Amino acid sequence: MNTRTGGRRREVSVPDLVERARAGQHAAIARLLTLVEDASPLLHEVMTELAPYWGRAHVVGLTGSPGVGKSTSTNALVRELRRQGQRVAVLAIDPSSPFSGGALLGDRVRMGDHTGDPEVYIRSMASRGHLGGLSWATPQAVRVLDAVGFDTVLVETVGVGQSEVEIAGLADSTVVLLAPGMGDGIQAAKAGILEIGDLYVVNKADREGADTVRRELRTMLSHSERPEPAWRRPVLKTVARTGEGMEKVVDSLAEHRAWLSTSGDLERRRTARAEREIEAIALELLRRRWGSVGQRGLVPPLAADVVAGRTDPHTAAATLVGE
Amino acid sequence: MNTRTGGRRREVSVPDLVERARAGQHAAIARLLTLVEDASPLLHEVMTELAPYWGRAHVVGLTGSPGVGKSTSTNALVRELRRQGQRVAVLAIDPSSPFSGGALLGDRVRMGDHTGDPEVYIRSMASRGHLGGLSWATPQAVRVLDAVGFDTVLVETVGVGQSEVEIAGLADSTVVLLAPGMGDGIQAAKAGILEIGDLYVVNKADREGADTVRRELRTMLSHSERPEPAWRRPVLKTVARTGEGMEKVVDSLAEHRAWLSTSGDLERRRTARAEREIEAIALELLRRRWGSVGQRGLVPPLAADVVAGRTDPHTAAATLVGE
Repeated sequence: MNTRTGGRRREVSVPDLVERARAGQHAAIARLLTLVEDASPLLHEVMTELAPYWGRAHVVGLTGSPGVGKSTSTNALVRELRRQGQRVAVLAIDPSSPFSGGALLGDRVRMGDHTGDPEVYIRSMASRGHLGGLSWATPQAVRVLDAVGFDTVLVETVGVGQSEVEIAGLADSTVVLLAPGMGDGIQAAKAGILEIGDLYVVNKADREGADTVRRELRTMLSHSERPEPAWRRPVLKTVARTGEGMEKVVDSLAEHRAWLSTSGDLERRRTARAEREIEAIALELLRRRWGSVGQRGLVPPLAADVVAGRTDPHTAAATLVGE
Repeated sequence: MNTRTGGRRREVSVPDLVERARAGQHAAIARLLTLVEDASPLLHEVMTELAPYWGRAHVVGLTGSPGVGKSTSTNALVRELRRQGQRVAVLAIDPSSPFSGGALLGDRVRMGDHTGDPEVYIRSMASRGHLGGLSWATPQAVRVLDAVGFDTVLVETVGVGQSEVEIAGLADSTVVLLAPGMGDGIQAAKAGILEIGDLYVVNKADREGADTVRRELRTMLSHSERPEPAWRRPVLKTVARTGEGMEKVVDSLAEHRAWLSTSGDLERRRTARAEREIEAIALELLRRRWGSVGQRGLVPPLAADVVAGRTDPHTAAATLVGE
């Protein structure tokens, strides 16, 4: 289905689209996600329609450096969740592809074992649309997948700095993947991973060094306890290739989800997330409003003045916004 | 010098600080850059003072994947520029350090050969302050270094997605570093690098495969010519460790700088850069203004409504900004 056909786009009925998406039609889900990616003017209506339905899904973030077996783990996780009867959506975020607007792996490739399973929906998204970053589009894509009825929404992202942090802000539960033999092992892992994981998984556990990685990680985690009601972050071992250990991962995720509910942390995390979403959208509304009053036309001459040293960017900006 | 001592900060006289920085005092330069990093309220005055002096420096961006020898190349480039009598500043941006606010390599380590040379100033900056990203602080740090009198300002950043693109927007000339034996060589290089480089350098040219990398890169570049007045992007070879080939790099940079002036591209690039800076600052002013009118207090209850499905983030945002 080509959702970008101009002629068809105008005919979209949002309530109809939402109804079809909630009935499990992949094409309708894809269409909704494209509206998100495109920051379509219809998005507001889409979100209004979906609001009554979201909040049920368990949003799981999955991150790790390249090479730890992220795609394999995602696939194995999906397989295990399916075995337990869940409907699963995967959002694979690709932060490394600024120009193509595409993803490292095409959707077709990623579908892997799950092609043809109507209860699994997999989508790759470039993390950088014109509105920038995970912060704008991804939370709304997650809302779509949640509201159309998936039990678990997996958000997978390569661990490169910012995206790791953002995924932790986005998910109810964050899984950090590691593997033995990745350069200097744990030492090479960025310090950031200690702060964001709710669950740690040492993948490729059949390789030498897995136990060392696990032990070192546990030590490091014990030195960086978070000032929160105590959730003891487990460090599990898997061999995603064979599925070994995945059941335990899914069990731990369920435990974490239950702990989140009991501790009140789920509400807190989700409210904090919604605050960031609202602020990002509000800022975008301000930006548009500002753009629409025509002051935007003042920017090029002001920029020329800055280049020539006749003024500075702060004075120019203050002029623009009338301060 | 501890620039963060509260008591001293209040005594700062911006004109005095600027004068001392322009006289080459590293402590004063460091102080100015800290004002930038901290988004100090004094920044506006700093920029106003500096405006008459900027625009002389050649701003050179240097990017490449981890392992291509970026630090070594920066050092070798500095050495060669010094040999030609230039005053050189290096801004090393670290996009991978979200939590520490620090940098991969401390300033002291990085100084390397250049410690004690008053004509070389090296500073590491975390790319993610509270205002986020290269887009806010880095251009202003570059303005500082330009205005205080450095002939070349090198901005070095690890090539991880977004930062590569941003560095290209920031620099007059962008150098993309590669090396043989990096996984699948060119194929592994992100597609993005073809769009951002003005100069390509195959480092570690004494290793096997350097010529292949160079040849493949040339072929790829020839297929991605940019719709601009013709600058034929050179692909050079270096051994940064020994300094081999660095003179040619410096020559090519000078040629590119001259070409930029003649073609009018320098003016265009710098104006576009100033536009982005002005817009980022204007947006920040809007954000602050919005925050100060107290509407911010509406965010948490609205967020709770979003979580509960009583409203959606778009409707909440529209309420906030009064639409």
